Amino acid sequence: MIQIAILGHGVVGTGTARMIEDNREQIARAVGDTVAVKYILDIRDLPDSPWADRIVHDYGVILADPEVALVAELIGGSEPAHTFALEALRRGKHVVTSNKECVSKFGAELSAEAAAHGVSYLFEASCGGGIPVVHPLLQDLAANRITEISGILNGTTNYILTKMFREGAQFADALKEAQDRGYAERNPSADVDGHDACRKINILSACVTDELWDDSRIYTEGITAVRTVDVAAADRAGYAVKLLGRMTEGYRFVAPHLVPYSCPLSHADDVFNAVLVRGNYVGDVMFYGRGAGAEATASAVVADVVAALSLPARSRVWTEEDSPKPLSSFSCPRYLTCDEADGHALLAALPVSARRVDAPEGEVALITDPLSERDMEAVRAAVALRSHLRVWA
Amino acid sequence: MIQIAILGHGVVGTGTARMIEDNREQIARAVGDTVAVKYILDIRDLPDSPWADRIVHDYGVILADPEVALVAELIGGSEPAHTFALEALRRGKHVVTSNKECVSKFGAELSAEAAAHGVSYLFEASCGGGIPVVHPLLQDLAANRITEISGILNGTTNYILTKMFREGAQFADALKEAQDRGYAERNPSADVDGHDACRKINILSACVTDELWDDSRIYTEGITAVRTVDVAAADRAGYAVKLLGRMTEGYRFVAPHLVPYSCPLSHADDVFNAVLVRGNYVGDVMFYGRGAGAEATASAVVADVVAALSLPARSRVWTEEDSPKPLSSFSCPRYLTCDEADGHALLAALPVSARRVDAPEGEVALITDPLSERDMEAVRAAVALRSHLRVWA
Repeated sequence: MIQIAILGHGVVGTGTARMIEDNREQIARAVGDTVAVKYILDIRDLPDSPWADRIVHDYGVILADPEVALVAELIGGSEPAHTFALEALRRGKHVVTSNKECVSKFGAELSAEAAAHGVSYLFEASCGGGIPVVHPLLQDLAANRITEISGILNGTTNYILTKMFREGAQFADALKEAQDRGYAERNPSADVDGHDACRKINILSACVTDELWDDSRIYTEGITAVRTVDVAAADRAGYAVKLLGRMTEGYRFVAPHLVPYSCPLSHADDVFNAVLVRGNYVGDVMFYGRGAGAEATASAVVADVVAALSLPARSRVWTEEDSPKPLSSFSCPRYLTCDEADGHALLAALPVSARRVDAPEGEVALITDPLSERDMEAVRAAVALRSHLRVWA
Repeated sequence: MIQIAILGHGVVGTGTARMIEDNREQIARAVGDTVAVKYILDIRDLPDSPWADRIVHDYGVILADPEVALVAELIGGSEPAHTFALEALRRGKHVVTSNKECVSKFGAELSAEAAAHGVSYLFEASCGGGIPVVHPLLQDLAANRITEISGILNGTTNYILTKMFREGAQFADALKEAQDRGYAERNPSADVDGHDACRKINILSACVTDELWDDSRIYTEGITAVRTVDVAAADRAGYAVKLLGRMTEGYRFVAPHLVPYSCPLSHADDVFNAVLVRGNYVGDVMFYGRGAGAEATASAVVADVVAALSLPARSRVWTEEDSPKPLSSFSCPRYLTCDEADGHALLAALPVSARRVDAPEGEVALITDPLSERDMEAVRAAVALRSHLRVWA
């Protein structure tokens, strides 16, 4: 029997403990041994928990117990999660985590520490909820030269955009409903401003390049400026509006995009996530599934438990890149709108061709040929735009 | 340096040799050592091949060479592929293959032989072309109880159905175009009659249950009876028509289905494949990508080369099930049409409720509540149906 400890008796921690009991046969078959939860660390007492007898408040108990082979860090946030993970690795315990903040901030340090101690530091649950995507990137697609990752990585914003499309809801109303349903936090900034997606695309990109960027240096635009009339105009032109985290041509960024209906990402709706990966041999592959929720996230955590206990520890270590490639030379088609009165000025200001599409009322809408961020700045300075969205191609 | 041999200098063999050269850095990083092709076995001389110096005609040379750690069997068909794979495993060489016929027929024997010799027998490329799906099922989703696999597993039939939908083409014309484009064989039976999809769903199911069924005992219905007017009627009712290989409730079968547009499988078009997997914790996840072609298939073959050379050999062995669960009790909603004159008879014959949908001209079309195969037989005996398609739910 292999003993593990869970840090955090919250939604994901509880789901993970439950899955390890419910699916013990599947897990034993995959690991080659039974797996049991010996401790759950929480600051609360939680006498009503089915695992009340295993709750401890002192992390030192877990660290000192040589029977604990693996620690599942499901606390979230930077500290004490980071220190807890570091201490476990130093004691030769595997660490698996759902904590994207910790992975994107401390992944270089923690992967080096894991390699130094011959144990695994795994984080499938940090990106895309239950979807197997981190491990497929690191293993199944590792022989491809990966040229693009485009992901719908945040379920809350995808739910909001889907509602704006299907029901013509305004952003504020759709956000309120997401909050009422528990999909969005009271302070929704991490989701709607794109920071959550930013961490996730940073982690997925690092799986390809072994290089973690400073999150704060990654261009990140959320969905608060997306108008319902633009979502409708995009649909009429054959596109869905999706918040994408992208790694392409060495760039990393997060922004809402028009995604053509011919691209399978365009059909990932509601709280679902989807990640498209382009490899030089495999072509485009897409991974789709639930991006959040206790059970789906537990599935990814337990997948990492299985991997840590049955596969050799990865020796690849990440480095930190403090001066990442700026976005200014990145070029893509653009969806632009302005007031009808400014239409001629916009066409005159554009250094590339554009086609008109059916516009929101009283406006002109264009989809341009590829245009760099730098050139786009000049257009923005010359014309008062109503909206600007990148087009995925 | 690790030496491998490729059996078969055809489309996939050539693609694999090229990928191993093109992506040598990626492969070396993933394996932890460089990988080189020492031999390519073919009955032809092929003096113009870039690998002409490595072509051998005698398999004995490869078997006898202790430097060859892995054999990629990319010949296809039952024999000599099966014997070649068996001999390599007996010499302690890993075997990776794209050969679905061989895996679905001899997978039990070959997996046992691999386990006995502590080497890997891997077959990612046998299902879903380049899409990572076999390994994710065996590894990333192994801790889930898998309750359903539904896959668009044959690119040729998906291309034909897409053409029937988009252009209103008749089956025969769409098939001819698929043949002209090289997507379909001159004898298209393996594709259009569902046998290819049958082998693949059998293999994917065995990844979950460790049990391989006799292909000939699996209910397999192709797309030759699908009418263009039904594809159009399905669309009006909110469904795409897709040929699915399914494992559900212990059943395995292949049949064309109406797939609701809310299901992501419905949006996998043209030659693309997609596999939806339902797990008791992960929920629905879907894997999407190119189901065929030299480069995509090579990607899966090389993924297995990487896995065989860097991961512990799997010890799980398949058994053969000669008396698989018959489909008679399987129940699902049905799309049924008959001539207008028979509409009342059809409604009278149905033991369940049904709703009318916009029908092909001169016909009545219904979507029924779930109805078993056995009850469906009785309906068929009572009424002259124009068409019968299962509905995915």
